[in-house]
This record gives sequence, C-alpha cells and structure tokens, in this order.
Amino acid sequence: MLKVGLLGAGRIAGVHATAITSHPGSSLVAVSDINTAAAQKIAAQYGAEVRDTDNILQDRTIDAVLIATSTDTHSDLIERATAAGKAVLCEKPVDLSLARARACQEAVASTGCPVMIGFNRRFDPNFSALKKAVHAGEIGKPELLSITSFDPAPPPVSYIKVSGGLFRDMMIHDFDMANFIMGTAPATVTAVGSSIVDPEIGGVGDVDTAVVTLSYSDGRIAVIKNSRRAVYGYDQRVELLGSDGLLQAQNMLENTVVKSTTQGVTGAKPTYFFLERYMPAYAAEWAAFVEAVDGAKPLPVTLDDGVAALAMAEAATLSVRTGAPVSIASLIG
Amino acid sequence: MLKVGLLGAGRIAGVHATAITSHPGSSLVAVSDINTAAAQKIAAQYGAEVRDTDNILQDRTIDAVLIATSTDTHSDLIERATAAGKAVLCEKPVDLSLARARACQEAVASTGCPVMIGFNRRFDPNFSALKKAVHAGEIGKPELLSITSFDPAPPPVSYIKVSGGLFRDMMIHDFDMANFIMGTAPATVTAVGSSIVDPEIGGVGDVDTAVVTLSYSDGRIAVIKNSRRAVYGYDQRVELLGSDGLLQAQNMLENTVVKSTTQGVTGAKPTYFFLERYMPAYAAEWAAFVEAVDGAKPLPVTLDDGVAALAMAEAATLSVRTGAPVSIASLIG
Amino acid sequence: MLKVGLLGAGRIAGVHATAITSHPGSSLVAVSDINTAAAQKIAAQYGAEVRDTDNILQDRTIDAVLIATSTDTHSDLIERATAAGKAVLCEKPVDLSLARARACQEAVASTGCPVMIGFNRRFDPNFSALKKAVHAGEIGKPELLSITSFDPAPPPVSYIKVSGGLFRDMMIHDFDMANFIMGTAPATVTAVGSSIVDPEIGGVGDVDTAVVTLSYSDGRIAVIKNSRRAVYGYDQRVELLGSDGLLQAQNMLENTVVKSTTQGVTGAKPTYFFLERYMPAYAAEWAAFVEAVDGAKPLPVTLDDGVAALAMAEAATLSVRTGAPVSIASLIG
Amino acid sequence: MLKVGLLGAGRIAGVHATAITSHPGSSLVAVSDINTAAAQKIAAQYGAEVRDTDNILQDRTIDAVLIATSTDTHSDLIERATAAGKAVLCEKPVDLSLARARACQEAVASTGCPVMIGFNRRFDPNFSALKKAVHAGEIGKPELLSITSFDPAPPPVSYIKVSGGLFRDMMIHDFDMANFIMGTAPATVTAVGSSIVDPEIGGVGDVDTAVVTLSYSDGRIAVIKNSRRAVYGYDQRVELLGSDGLLQAQNMLENTVVKSTTQGVTGAKPTYFFLERYMPAYAAEWAAFVEAVDGAKPLPVTLDDGVAALAMAEAATLSVRTGAPVSIASLIG
Repeated sequence: MLKVGLLGAGRIAGVHATAITSHPGSSLVAVSDINTAAAQKIAAQYGAEVRDTDNILQDRTIDAVLIATSTDTHSDLIERATAAGKAVLCEKPVDLSLARARACQEAVASTGCPVMIGFNRRFDPNFSALKKAVHAGEIGKPELLSITSFDPAPPPVSYIKVSGGLFRDMMIHDFDMANFIMGTAPATVTAVGSSIVDPEIGGVGDVDTAVVTLSYSDGRIAVIKNSRRAVYGYDQRVELLGSDGLLQAQNMLENTVVKSTTQGVTGAKPTYFFLERYMPAYAAEWAAFVEAVDGAKPLPVTLDDGVAALAMAEAATLSVRTGAPVSIASLIG
Repeated sequence: MLKVGLLGAGRIAGVHATAITSHPGSSLVAVSDINTAAAQKIAAQYGAEVRDTDNILQDRTIDAVLIATSTDTHSDLIERATAAGKAVLCEKPVDLSLARARACQEAVASTGCPVMIGFNRRFDPNFSALKKAVHAGEIGKPELLSITSFDPAPPPVSYIKVSGGLFRDMMIHDFDMANFIMGTAPATVTAVGSSIVDPEIGGVGDVDTAVVTLSYSDGRIAVIKNSRRAVYGYDQRVELLGSDGLLQAQNMLENTVVKSTTQGVTGAKPTYFFLERYMPAYAAEWAAFVEAVDGAKPLPVTLDDGVAALAMAEAATLSVRTGAPVSIASLIG
Repeated sequence: MLKVGLLGAGRIAGVHATAITSHPGSSLVAVSDINTAAAQKIAAQYGAEVRDTDNILQDRTIDAVLIATSTDTHSDLIERATAAGKAVLCEKPVDLSLARARACQEAVASTGCPVMIGFNRRFDPNFSALKKAVHAGEIGKPELLSITSFDPAPPPVSYIKVSGGLFRDMMIHDFDMANFIMGTAPATVTAVGSSIVDPEIGGVGDVDTAVVTLSYSDGRIAVIKNSRRAVYGYDQRVELLGSDGLLQAQNMLENTVVKSTTQGVTGAKPTYFFLERYMPAYAAEWAAFVEAVDGAKPLPVTLDDGVAALAMAEAATLSVRTGAPVSIASLIG
Repeated sequence: MLKVGLLGAGRIAGVHATAITSHPGSSLVAVSDINTAAAQKIAAQYGAEVRDTDNILQDRTIDAVLIATSTDTHSDLIERATAAGKAVLCEKPVDLSLARARACQEAVASTGCPVMIGFNRRFDPNFSALKKAVHAGEIGKPELLSITSFDPAPPPVSYIKVSGGLFRDMMIHDFDMANFIMGTAPATVTAVGSSIVDPEIGGVGDVDTAVVTLSYSDGRIAVIKNSRRAVYGYDQRVELLGSDGLLQAQNMLENTVVKSTTQGVTGAKPTYFFLERYMPAYAAEWAAFVEAVDGAKPLPVTLDDGVAALAMAEAATLSVRTGAPVSIASLIG
C-alpha cells in the first residue's frame, strides 16, 4: 500500500485525492496547503491529516507525494521531495523557466527517485487508444499530425500575467501530446499567434490564438492549433495521417441524444472543460504512477518529458515574436 | 446519513455497494448473502459487516435495504423489509408472477414505506436527456417510439429456464423504458418472436429475437426490438418521432477514435454490456433513491412501475403464442 | 439503341425522360398523355414526339414503353404493351387490386415480354451497397430487419381516398425493400396503425402511422415503421441484424456542414423528399432495365415482385383492422 | 443562348462539356485540341464541331470560351480570347509565373471582357453552405480557419516537374478557398514542408507534405494542410472557428452504409478524387458563369482571385525554402 502525501489542496488536488483513495494500492495519509481551510476540507472528506509540507516530506512512512501547488513552487518541491527519498507525481509544468527546470532535472537525477509529470491527456482513453493504434502500425508510418485544442473561455488577464502565457500554460499539454504520439521531440518550432479573442491578452504581451508547426528531422510535420475560446465547449481533437491511413480522436460529447427538426439535426456539445473531459484520465494517470513506483512498469511520463515540453513552449514564445523557426537544439543542446 | 443494508452479494451487489459508499449521504452498514464468502468480500472492501438477512431487517438503526438477491426472493423480501419499516430499492423484476407482484403491491401499500424498483436505464444520462427533451416539448406531441435493445451474447439455456424468458428478464427493461418515455402504459401488446439465434432457447419454450408493438389508447404506437445477440456489443438505442421532430439516443462507444484506411472508416464498438454502459446510471439511480427517501423529491420509479412492466411482459408472452394482441386491462384490469 | 415510348407526362415522367435520354443505349421517341400540354412540354425538352398511346403501342420501331400514368391504368397498359411485344418498365404499384394484378401477371406470362416494376429504392446506392454486403455474408446470417420510412408531410386526403391507403401507396416500397433484402416473401404480416398525424386520414378509413411486423418461415423477423410526417425531411433508413453484425443504411443529408455553438452541434437535415433522395436511383434503375432488355442480365425487379409487394399491402390492410396476423399464402396461395 | 467554344479536349474538358450542354442557357458549338482524336470524340458525343483555336476565337457567333488546355497556354489564351471579345472561363492556375499572370491581368482589364477562373471548390455545396453560414454571422466573427486537403495518391514525378510544384498545382485551390472564406488575402504566408511521401518528389525540389500558416492584418489566422497521399480517398475538409462557434464542412462519403461487427463500426470511405467529389460543383460553376455573363450577377471568381492565389503559392514556395514568413505585399505590392 503506497502511502501518499498531497501537497496543495486546490480544485485539482481534490481530483487527485479521489484518485488516490479510490485506488486499491494507495492511501492518502496527509495533505498540506498554505490555505489551511482548504487542506482541512480535503483531509476531512478523504480521512487524511492536515500537516505542513516539511512534516510530510520528513515522514519516512510516506512513500510518495503528489505536488498540486502553484507552478512557481514545483521545481523546489520536486527537489526537496526527491532529496527526502519520495516518489513524486507533479502537476505540469515543471517550471516557467527552462533553465530552472533543467537544474531541477539534474538535481533529481542524482537521487534516483521516480518523478512523473502530470500530463494527464496521455491517459485519456481516446488518445491512448490512438497512440496504441499508431504503435501497432495500423496507419503505417506517421507523416502529419494535427492537434486541435481549444478552451471554452479565456482565463482572466490576471492569470495570464503569471501563467507564463499560452504556450507555457495551455499549449504545453499539446507539445507533450505531440511528443507522446510522435515518440520524439521536433527539430524546430515555428509559431504564429495573435490576440483576437481578447485584446487585453495582447496588452499583456500574450496571444490567445496560435498555430504552431513542428518540423521533425525525418521530415514528419505536426501542427497545433490553440484558441482560448470555443463557446461550444472544450475542443480536444488529435488526428494523424500516416502512409496507410488516418487516425482521429474526436471529442467526447455530453450525451448521445440527437434531435432532428426543421432546424437541422442537433447533437450534444463536447463536454465542457478539462474536469469533465479528463476525469477518467486522472484515475488512469494515478494508476500508472502506482504501477511504476511498484516497479511493475517504467514511468510513463518523466521529468525529461516535462523539460522537453517546456523547451518547446519557450521555442514557440520566441518564434511568435520573430516569425522565424526556432531550433530546439539551440535551447537545450 | 442513510444507513443501508445490502441483501445479496453477487456482481450487481458490488456495483450497488460502490454507489452507496460513494454517495455523501449514505453508508453501507451490513451485507447478507447465502454465499458467505461473497458477503465477506464485499463487507471487507467497503468496510461493512456480514450479517444475516433477519438481523439486518430487525436492526432499527438501518434505514434502507437494497435487494440484489435472486428474482424469486424479491417480493418476499420487499414485503418483509417494508413490514420492518425500511425504505427499499429492489432490483427488477418484482417477481416472475404478475399475481405475486400484485399481492406484494397491496402488502406494501399498507406500510407506507417507499419502494423503488431498479430500472437503472431511466438514469442513463442519454435516456434521461431524451426524456427531458420530450417533456420540454422539443419535438411536439410524441407519436411513434422505437426501442432497439440487443444483448451482446445469449445467456446459457440454464439461465433462461429460470429467468421467466426474454420478455420478463430482458425486454422488461424496454417495457419500463416505453412507460418512462410515453408517460403511460399501452392499451394492447402485440408480439412476434422466434428462436433464430439459438434453437436450444426455442427448445425450452422461449424466443431469442422478438418484435413487440404497443398500442396506446390515444393512437400512439411503440415498437421494441430485442435480440439476445449483437456480436458488436450492447446495442441500446431509443428513438421517438413527434409532430415537430425526432429524438434519438444513440449508443455509447468505447472511445472516439476513428481510423480511415483503404478498408473504410472504422470507429469503436458500443460499450460491451450493461456494466460498462450503465455504470453512471447506477450511481444516479442510488442518488435519486436517497433524495426520495429524504423526502426531497418523489420516488422516480415505483413498485407500480415494476408491476406495470411485468404485466406487459406477461402480455407479450401470451401474444407471442397466439399471434393476437393482448389487452393490458385484461391482465390487471 | 433502345427506342422508347413514354406513357404519361407528369412529374415522375420527366425524371424518367432525363434517365432515358442521358443513357447512351436508349432514346426517347414519343410521349403520350391525356394532358396534351404536359406531353408537349416533355416532348419539346427531350426532342421526342407527342403521340397517342395507341399509336405508340402500334409502332413496331418502338422497343419499350415506360408506364408513368395513374395507378388505375397500370395493369391495362402493361397487358396492352406486352401484347404489342414491348418491353415494359412500369411505375409501382401494379394495381390497387391484388386480383387484378394477378390476372395481369398471367396475361403477361404468355407474351414472354420483360416487365419490370419501378421499385426505384432497390437502385439507391446506399440500399444496393447494403444488399451487396448482406449477399457477401459480411454480417453472417440475417435475423432481424428494420425499415424506417417516413415522408416529410402527409398528402391531401383527396389523394388518400384514391391511393389505396398507406400500405398500398407508401409502405409498398418498404414491402419490396424487405423482399429485396431478405430474398423471399414473409409467411405472415401483422400490422398496427393509427391516424395520429391527421385525424381526417382516419376519417377516410386509413392510417398515417403504422408498424408492420413480418414473420418468415425460417424464423427471421422484419419490422417496418411508416409515418406520413417527419418534419425534418425524408427519413429512409434500413438496418439488418445478422449473426455476425449489423448493417445500417442511413439518411442522405443536404450537405456535410456541421455547426457547433452554445446551442449544440447541428448538421444538415436529410434530403427533403424522394426526388432529392432517389434521383441517382432513377438513372440506375433505367440502366438496369436497358441491360436486362438487352439480355445481358436478368430483370432485377419483376412483375412477380410487384404482385408480392401488393399482397403484403393487402395483408397489412386486413391485419390492421383485425389485429391478427394475416398469412400471405391465404391471399396468393 | 450562350454559344460556347471549348479549348482543350482532355478529361476535365469532358466534364465541362457535360455542364455546358446540360445547362438550358448554353450550347457547345465547337471544340479544339492539338490532339485531334480527343477533340473529335468530345465533338461527336456532344454534337459540336471540331475546329482550330483560331477559328473559334475569330467566330463572332461564339460568345464564350472555356479554356481547359495545359497550364502554360492559359494566359496567352485568356489574352487572345478577351482581345477577340469573348467571355472566358479558364481552368486554374492563370499561369505558373506570377509576373506573367499579372501582365495578363492588365491586358484583360483593357478589354472589359469577363474572365472567371475555375476554382470549382467554391461551388461545392458543402463549402458554399459553410460560406453562406459565415456570411450570415452564424458563428460570429471568424478567427481561425483550418483547411485539410489531401489527394488520394501522388502524381508521377514527371508531372511535378512541370506543374509548378505542390503550392502552385494543389494548394492553390486551398489558397483560393481561404480567400473565399476569409473574404480577403492574408498579409503573410509561412510554410513548412517536406517530401516524406515520396523522396523522388524531394529529388526534383518539391514537397509532398506541407503546412502553411496565413496571418491576416486584423489578427485572424488560417492554416492549410496538404498531403499528396491519403490512401482512404480524397480528404477535403474546412473548419472555421469564430467568436460564436465552429463551422465544419466534412467529407462526402461513397455511401451511408455502416457495418458493426466484432472488428468495430465501419462506414464508407470519402469519395475517391476530385471528379467524384466535385462533379456537382462543376455544374454549379458553369451555371454561375452563365449567370454572370448574362449580367444577372457579378462574376463569382475573377482573374484577380486567380492572381491572388498564385501570389500566395509563390510566397509559400519562397517561405518553405527560407523558413521565414513572406509578405504578400512584397510580391504584389
């Protein structure tokens, strides 16, 4: 039985607490948060204790920590937790700074502790079925990947000021999805973006609509489309053209009811946002972490994966300013 | 907090145990089964005690029982539980005998205890969305209902010998669905059936493929198609034509991945069987029961509904033999 | 080059004129109609002559006639045309009277002339693809056929008074479709119907909504649903459950555009009515007739097929009154 | 009645000949081709004369010419035909050289003759329905356009050597589609491409897989994906995200049959290639040309549109080499 400490008690921490307690191989022992009331609420609901972070990290009976705190604390906590010998599952991104993330990567390497980054979409049943089909050669050799990823509504500008911008807080999921499907990082990143949804987002130097093209050294190409606003719901699609066919993972819908009237044939919208769409993915993600910590399987998403996605976000941020392609090697050699 | 005793510890009892313990307003106190090992397994997993049925029924601290035993015990247990003042959620059908079910109905009436029958499909998000749209008048006045309900594979003949046959063990769900959507029972039932899937099923006097037409006193018509075998999975669809349009609830699929090759465009199959398809419905069913017992809302499915569906099963069983329509009034006046 | 006379100059005659003149192996020589203006219009557009029916039938240079006159003239014209040695393609139904149609069948048999009945739906690319897949064994042994066939709007009551009623003027297409797919006529017909769309239709003794179940001697079952009104367009679907799977032919849509908004995900309606939906089928039907008259292939739809469908319509008309199944053998021995 | 001369007698000329002769307002008078046999075949089938091009252009009774010759003759023939006072419908592209096309544009301007370029996809019922919905404001303000356009199989390398390359012979349709939907040309073009389908295509300096991003001066973005090979058929999709929703025009399928087996749920492939997919568009294109020449409506696609698409092709050709965005103004100021 894996004994787990939960660092952070916000909304996503609650999702993880459910996953941890529902899993037959793990139990939630303690939770910490600077917001004590939030920590107490989760502790009460799931039968855990409220403690401070130091106490959790120093408790030798705790095997693993799940880091669901604010982004600026991630790399510090990863380093402290691994120094204390814990297995770690940390929410993405590793850090807003690529340099800081790479330092974290080095620090962790010396500990030998498993660190998994929470790219939950890899565990979505649709995307994992697509990946499995690619791996099985069902469409031959992959050639052209296309990822559509639209949020239902833009976040407040106050969030964008601290989030690292669209490429680091939103498209980073899609960069990791590209790496997951293509099995390798691209050679260059070319980005085009604008703030057409909300000019205030442009006012703070970010974009809300972007198209990023990834070029691979073997000639494959990927393209990612992001928008901060799709009023019809969370639009999360992947399609991959290969030498023998096309694979598409389409949206999950709220229900299967279709209505035909004089106005047309109308079905349900996509599920509203990530909690609705990816709830099964969070449980599968946790199960994969437990399995990896138990040694049954390798870690499915590593700290290296977190750094790779962050490098692509940094490359896109540079490219959207200059218009020129940015080489990944120029950033992480 | 509703304290619950679970009668029965088979597969479906496990599903209910999860629903009971996951609900914030109910807790599983005790479980009974003639198979003690099965009861112990559930009790251990969900933190409940193994007791015998008498003990559970006599325990005044237990508010409600969930009856998930074999069909032949349902009406007895409903009567005993309500006599003991418990609220009851009982798996369908009430009984294989319409006369026995009607006697149970009378016995329960005098106790005033709430008894809900487990027609789980009413709580499927797709069917409940369809019902809601009908109720909102989105397709005007309903005229012609069509229910497709195919199991993935036929049960063993040994099961069919004791199940009451296709109309009582399988189509009874669809009879209730018709009552749910149409809001009233039909006037007459006309059934056509054969045993084309498995001649052994015909050998024990049952059918494995059937079409039943329901006529309503106001001119509406419904048709139900059943087959014991759809090799592609559990096929559960409803469509309703109204004066202003058509509503269709389509199948849930295993995932949203679509593959286009020289062989065509292929998507996932429907979810395999009722546990996959209706898992969310079991949780919603239990939540509705708790809400009704708490008095917040009326019971969404009553013992009367259970008797009504059983009468339709009996009518269909008669009609398939004679070829003639059978009036419901002739059975339950 | 097949020289063709067209009997009748109404709307459907125009469709046939296009098919005849577009086919490289046939030419339209003459057209007749009691409405001379209508005949002149078609003749002018397609470069044919207006003649009277006698003249066309006596013209030895004319090889074939297409009968697109009113239903009450069909069997007479079939007899006269075959007596004159013409190949015949006649619009459905053969006659409103089964006895008259059978007499026609006998009269034609002695002439040896090919007579094809215009069940155009057999030539719809979707239904013919479904039939081909069944024939290829793609879903194993057929077990349960379901045909949905709704018109967009009811005809005037004046039409219904002379049409022979829903079973003879509308469902006759579906009876033929069942025979086409199943490869044989059913043993018995059980019909349920009502006039819920338009009570005036009930006032003249007809139904506007009906469910007809067909039982085959080998245990297969088919069910046909008809409604005179589907406000969203012409709803023409076939599905067949077999031992190894399910085949469905779905509706043709006006276009492939899908709109996602806060109101849902909306696509185009089905094509509006038979001219939109079956235009390609009329051309394929004519091509098949030319091919059969040339001797290259057997007639794809025979006068026997026309009589078989008419017998089913008569059986359904009887059954809807009595509620009891009607044996086809009792009608055509 | 518009009297038409057809220049060219290849495969696409045959498609146009059908459109011209089927239209009630136009007739095909003459056809010319350096391949006399091909010209004779079309002339015989459609009742026209074989003449040489000079003769057609000098014939004052001929009102319009349709240019369906090889690309390298287009601008010359447009100039000669308009100098002779003819209305012109010319297949795309205007020319492989942007400079030559612009010279042609100037020459034509002085004649006042209507010249329409054959961007047939604008007349596809799906894309024109999408455009109409955009124009009606159904998804608010357009923000992000995505065009997927894959051919079923790559052409021979010999064709690519003379075609002007992927951007001029294939993506030019998509450039025009972007201009059609967005209503204006983009400010800059950024292209990424590779020859991953067939290295021989790379060997002659072209790409077979490309992603081109278009940036508009008002912040809108479009992305076009091209591949020379989609083994499942002609993949032609457009989707547009706007402030109030998403519009998608999906593929046309060969039929509507769907098969569900243990292997999944399989539907038909997209129609195979442009003749299958766009046949209705060619007829609609011709009808629009006749209507514009008659003065009833403005020309729906102009020579300016042809030059605009060609400029985008040239920009993409430059960008794919340098990696940098290319400004359209730098090419056509």
